[in-house]
Amino acid sequence: MQYVKHLECVLCGKTYPASPTATTCPACGPSGILDVVFDYDAISHREDRDEVIHSTDNGLWRWMPLLPVEPDGPRGPLLPGNTPLVPAPRLAEALGVGRLWLKDEGRAPTASLKDRASAIGVAKALEVGARTVATASTGNAASSLAGACAAAGLRSVIFVPKTAAEGKVAQLLIFGATVFQVQGSYADAFRLATEAIAEQPGWYNRLSGINPYLVEGKKTCGLEIALDLNWKVPDWVVVSVGDGCTVAGIARAFIELKRIGWIDRVPRILGVQAAGSRAIADAFATERYAPGGEDTIADGIAVGEPRNWIKAVTRIKATGGTFTLVTDDEIREAMRLTGRLTGVFAEPAAGAAVAGLQKATVQGIIGKSDSVAVVVSGSGLKDVRRAIEAAGAPLKVQPTIEAVRAALPPMN
Amino acid sequence: MQYVKHLECVLCGKTYPASPTATTCPACGPSGILDVVFDYDAISHREDRDEVIHSTDNGLWRWMPLLPVEPDGPRGPLLPGNTPLVPAPRLAEALGVGRLWLKDEGRAPTASLKDRASAIGVAKALEVGARTVATASTGNAASSLAGACAAAGLRSVIFVPKTAAEGKVAQLLIFGATVFQVQGSYADAFRLATEAIAEQPGWYNRLSGINPYLVEGKKTCGLEIALDLNWKVPDWVVVSVGDGCTVAGIARAFIELKRIGWIDRVPRILGVQAAGSRAIADAFATERYAPGGEDTIADGIAVGEPRNWIKAVTRIKATGGTFTLVTDDEIREAMRLTGRLTGVFAEPAAGAAVAGLQKATVQGIIGKSDSVAVVVSGSGLKDVRRAIEAAGAPLKVQPTIEAVRAALPPMN
Repeated sequence: MQYVKHLECVLCGKTYPASPTATTCPACGPSGILDVVFDYDAISHREDRDEVIHSTDNGLWRWMPLLPVEPDGPRGPLLPGNTPLVPAPRLAEALGVGRLWLKDEGRAPTASLKDRASAIGVAKALEVGARTVATASTGNAASSLAGACAAAGLRSVIFVPKTAAEGKVAQLLIFGATVFQVQGSYADAFRLATEAIAEQPGWYNRLSGINPYLVEGKKTCGLEIALDLNWKVPDWVVVSVGDGCTVAGIARAFIELKRIGWIDRVPRILGVQAAGSRAIADAFATERYAPGGEDTIADGIAVGEPRNWIKAVTRIKATGGTFTLVTDDEIREAMRLTGRLTGVFAEPAAGAAVAGLQKATVQGIIGKSDSVAVVVSGSGLKDVRRAIEAAGAPLKVQPTIEAVRAALPPMN
Repeated sequence: MQYVKHLECVLCGKTYPASPTATTCPACGPSGILDVVFDYDAISHREDRDEVIHSTDNGLWRWMPLLPVEPDGPRGPLLPGNTPLVPAPRLAEALGVGRLWLKDEGRAPTASLKDRASAIGVAKALEVGARTVATASTGNAASSLAGACAAAGLRSVIFVPKTAAEGKVAQLLIFGATVFQVQGSYADAFRLATEAIAEQPGWYNRLSGINPYLVEGKKTCGLEIALDLNWKVPDWVVVSVGDGCTVAGIARAFIELKRIGWIDRVPRILGVQAAGSRAIADAFATERYAPGGEDTIADGIAVGEPRNWIKAVTRIKATGGTFTLVTDDEIREAMRLTGRLTGVFAEPAAGAAVAGLQKATVQGIIGKSDSVAVVVSGSGLKDVRRAIEAAGAPLKVQPTIEAVRAALPPMN
């Protein structure tokens, strides 16, 4: 917190002290998302980017000057960060771009980018002495919170709707979370979580879109991309967009690095939404926001009422970036293409990012000589059912060598 | 290959040149597993352990002096190695050991330790100019090969039995493998793979238990444990055992490091087998080998006819180690315990390792002040069905705050 000045409402601009239990702007209500404001001049004068390079063992904590936690404060032991930026020359050639890397967040502790946010959530919970952290989620945010809490000895309480996938619930239970399976919708689960947290003063709130600190953890994914490329950022960074929080964080990373003089220019951000869940892309195009659908196989970005749409729109505009929309068929094809040409098994939301890049090259938004980093937000192993839909079928053969010979495709 | 002297049969002791396409001892047949013999005196004189520390970016290739590949030869781009050694103080306390770490191989490129072997397999295939690599497997060996081949632009051909889990087949297909689903048993799939490779001169053989080089890749897991602990090895290293190849490789790591003077002593290796698949543990105890069952939920160590039993028995004896046996119930309980106390989601074979450690502490084999590293061989996300069996059930509630209050367990 040594460089945090205050929190600022993205709607009305009012400022508030950076209390660890801050949520949204009291004046504006739930839409009044608070932004953490840092003293960039001080960071620029006092911090040295070369020190960041040599603190590999600290994972995401190497970015402490740009994080809203106490430098000597408590932290959980599960350490996100340092995911590989995988060069993808074969995929670059197939998509028609100059250079391509995949930031593989599937290699995080619980196999998604959300571990970066949960590490901040757990640090803040420990800061205020909470014993319990609570959220509502059906996906990566929940499992990353449960894993981070297990490692830190905190209790996690997760509200999931009755439709939550069996496998994801299993992951929560393995991590020892108290899981309420609400016999209702996701909106019911979210409301119940909010009510329960309100009446349990000892519980820390990790509801995405309410807690102002989590996005700063997600930001470290962008900071790492710059570091991984030795501060020579690519022309484009591609991020799939659901609530808008992740893309806002990653865009902010580059804007901040430019502001403190650690990089020379900000890469353009390509936001990718599913055609069936496009509220933020539409707000970007029309400058008017309306809630949208949640119709896509990519559950990580199926968000009808995104709370962080303003941040997402504003920040992508600030980078000179834009949006593309992709269909479920295009997502499945991109999952196959990524697997076949890189050995990285992308979750559907990450397949969407690759599909969006592919579309942007066809549309001429991204050029043949451009360099591109794609954020692979989580592992495909988290949603095997969708992978099976995308993967195709094996060759069934009788157990004879003659049958194998007959079925063998041409080997070129 | 700068320090490789030759290959040596573990049965008859005959030596052979280290040809990249070597398989088993022609004199002894399939049981005549070949061992790579290095010139340890030369390594000891010419190599410096401090150089290894500073070559993080090379992943497992930082161990080049101890690997059977050409230092300047071709390699695939998917880079295993540098998995975290996660401190597990809460689990240490629960199990009653002095210090405990988990080597989390679930953080490897395709989420298992087998990526270390497949990287060697792909490097050897590229060395001989092969375009196709083939194997029979239903599990981690297959998916790691398919991923490594995809990244390197090689074709992978995988023979799986008809019982192979849908999710694992999906992972292979996402990586673009040619998958033969043999309408027969695993033995049928293995036989067909052997026959098909024999009649396709351009195919490289990655059959575990035949290819003598793969185990040297697995060895790097043990080498890393020593490095992660700054060359102060723990009292015990715990590894679950199926075919025997992995534990033999990890034991070898420490024996070699001691031989070249980079560590002062060899940790004792605790091999863990499932009570229903215990051929190697029995051979260790009785000094007589007989094939055994394959009856365990931990499919990664369900091996009735382990090909590397001699190596496993000899090497564990050489470390002063021993075996424990665990039941499926103990494996499920250990998966829960590990998740709840560390945030690491272990596959059943890795749960077996934790269960074996727990048993060894109860039996007094491992003492209260001992330090222990457990190899978590792969991610629990690979086998969600087994995780669900282990995980327990959520609390079902109606969507009212009263229902939540009533169902809330005591928070201590």
